[in-house]
Amino acid sequence: MTAPSDALSDYVLGLGDDALVSAQRMSWWISRAPELEEDLALANIGLDQLGQARTLLAYAGEVEGTGRSEDDLAYLRDDRDFRNVWLVERPQTDFGVAMARLLVFSTYQCELYAALASSTDATLAGIAGKAVKEVAYHRDHARLWTLRLGDGTTESHARMQVALEGEWPHVEELFAPVEGALVDPQSLRSAVLSRVEEVVVEATLSVPQVSPAIGGGRRGLHTEHLGHLLAEMQDLHRSHPGVTW
Amino acid sequence: MTAPSDALSDYVLGLGDDALVSAQRMSWWISRAPELEEDLALANIGLDQLGQARTLLAYAGEVEGTGRSEDDLAYLRDDRDFRNVWLVERPQTDFGVAMARLLVFSTYQCELYAALASSTDATLAGIAGKAVKEVAYHRDHARLWTLRLGDGTTESHARMQVALEGEWPHVEELFAPVEGALVDPQSLRSAVLSRVEEVVVEATLSVPQVSPAIGGGRRGLHTEHLGHLLAEMQDLHRSHPGVTW
Repeated sequence: MTAPSDALSDYVLGLGDDALVSAQRMSWWISRAPELEEDLALANIGLDQLGQARTLLAYAGEVEGTGRSEDDLAYLRDDRDFRNVWLVERPQTDFGVAMARLLVFSTYQCELYAALASSTDATLAGIAGKAVKEVAYHRDHARLWTLRLGDGTTESHARMQVALEGEWPHVEELFAPVEGALVDPQSLRSAVLSRVEEVVVEATLSVPQVSPAIGGGRRGLHTEHLGHLLAEMQDLHRSHPGVTW
Repeated sequence: MTAPSDALSDYVLGLGDDALVSAQRMSWWISRAPELEEDLALANIGLDQLGQARTLLAYAGEVEGTGRSEDDLAYLRDDRDFRNVWLVERPQTDFGVAMARLLVFSTYQCELYAALASSTDATLAGIAGKAVKEVAYHRDHARLWTLRLGDGTTESHARMQVALEGEWPHVEELFAPVEGALVDPQSLRSAVLSRVEEVVVEATLSVPQVSPAIGGGRRGLHTEHLGHLLAEMQDLHRSHPGVTW
């Protein structure tokens, strides 16, 4: 049985880790997007997520009461201590995959942050109230690309469909129960699914019929991809703590 | 003999390419910086540079009168057609190197944009007037790190000195004459050098005594590093023009 504050800090860590890991994956696109304007857009989306991650991790450390800073939490934990969902940790080096994932993730974050903005935890409500405007823009961006590619050429349609099929097994994990949750993940499910599916249909794509993946990120069970991501992200900090060299 | 408008578009291309290539190198740091706050800072610096590059390239295309867009210029030119200086094109995967280079480059940009802001070319004056505030912040950021590392531990001091020695051969190319220049590069030399050297001395480091590298970026002569950078940056656009797939 976890103490209430442990459960809360774990919950907040999950939200922060989702944003942090997603920001890292998004940053891969910087300098690799198909247009300079898109380069800037994806970079800004990643930076919004990184900003959310920083405030969430700082708050998780505060609730935890151990004095761990946002940097301690980002750079000094191993993958088993990360609480993010599988959706965000896999590589996304295909543009369609990046947009399919952003559509799902930002729609989830929209519903989550909107609900958290009126939660009884004033700090979390403040963080969520600010972030909800950011993720609404992210969702809009992903929606426009999904429409453009889904309802585009035969090839763009086919590739966007493949991208959706790859992300879909990881949708259910977003709604799995979490101890200490201030917003029951299950309560977001129908709104998130219906909003995502609406875009999928508008883009002339099909809603995938696939079985959910195992998941377990909230309990520290991850794919091998997270380890590689953390190795890159944590390397400099771990080799030069505080850049004191 | 180049026509005046060709010389001007070539000059503007040089400024735009400096900013674009620097932005790409800066983006390498995203997700790899030693602190989350620094991650955000370097990302934002890179995005400022990318924004400058977009407006400069768009204007170069306009002056050129060939209808080439910012994306055409960024993604469809080979390295021989890039006009950036060598300073910005080499990899910067050491944090000290990144800060040493940013100190030099942003100080140069500060002086350049300040002078261009009162040039007779209204478009360029407008672009420069906006950008000068951005690069002043970049310079401040690089200055603080140079002081922190130079006047830090024995090791950080030594590594920062090595970083400066590596960048210094590429300083003179910034001041080489350029046909069509609205601000004579040579006129920036003493202000840039004295401002950079002031920081170097304040950081208890030594001003390097090294011979200038050959350079030639403004004439399309580049190191092999630019080719690798462009390969990565242009890959998606070239394989999927306009992301029409």
